[in-house]
Amino acid sequence: MKDARVTLITLGASDLERSAAFYEALGWVRTEAGNESVVFLQGEGIVLSLFGLADLAADAGLRAEALPAFRGVTLAINLPSETETDRLFEAAVKAGANPVKPPETVFWGGYSGYFADPDGHLWELAYNPFFPLSESGHIDLTKSSEEPA
Amino acid sequence: MKDARVTLITLGASDLERSAAFYEALGWVRTEAGNESVVFLQGEGIVLSLFGLADLAADAGLRAEALPAFRGVTLAINLPSETETDRLFEAAVKAGANPVKPPETVFWGGYSGYFADPDGHLWELAYNPFFPLSESGHIDLTKSSEEPA
Repeated sequence: MKDARVTLITLGASDLERSAAFYEALGWVRTEAGNESVVFLQGEGIVLSLFGLADLAADAGLRAEALPAFRGVTLAINLPSETETDRLFEAAVKAGANPVKPPETVFWGGYSGYFADPDGHLWELAYNPFFPLSESGHIDLTKSSEEPA
Repeated sequence: MKDARVTLITLGASDLERSAAFYEALGWVRTEAGNESVVFLQGEGIVLSLFGLADLAADAGLRAEALPAFRGVTLAINLPSETETDRLFEAAVKAGANPVKPPETVFWGGYSGYFADPDGHLWELAYNPFFPLSESGHIDLTKSSEEPA
């Protein structure tokens, strides 16, 4: 088993039920693995975990402080077209996301936008014509560089 | 293609080469897709992208501020045993990680620790006996809840 994996992403949430409903509206499947203090949502090859902000900080032995709008990290979902990117962005906003930057054509030749979830966690939605997606919707850059289009 | 995916995680980095070397030491494969301002590292079913902290903030139309130690989000790698968890934690520290919380037995019945990468991004390494790993090293909680151990 390779070490270079991400099995689970934990997002600190101020209202677990609100955040769970938000991600369920975007296709994540809530599982029975959680309890009153944690929610696990299954995605394609990855689990999204929602945990109280203070609890998450404490779990790492850190102090929960006020968070800036930009937190140094973004999570991205690459989509197969501009139309699909717009569709998911609109669905996110309808589900309660903050439309930080509506999708637009960007300098590197793709199409990208950002929304923030109910706790301000940043998600990028992007169509990148240079990064082909597998059937399950993942990117393999080692494969694409060996087989140029 | 399902929407519930994470294709790419972008970590803001203050020194791209230092961060690239750190993740390469942990098994991530640097690809040819990058350039002088961005590094793409391939993992199992996910891409890790390293981008300047200020550039990443600007890409989302936000201002790069000083970041607290706790940023509201953690990335996790689940491992198949306590021994494997210790092994990868030690490799991370040897590669330059800050050992925020060495792995220890935790209240939920697993074994977990946290390190911070050269820019303070938090990674959890965990052995969770209740979350079986697939051959590729991913978690499927919908499968495990249908087939109790």
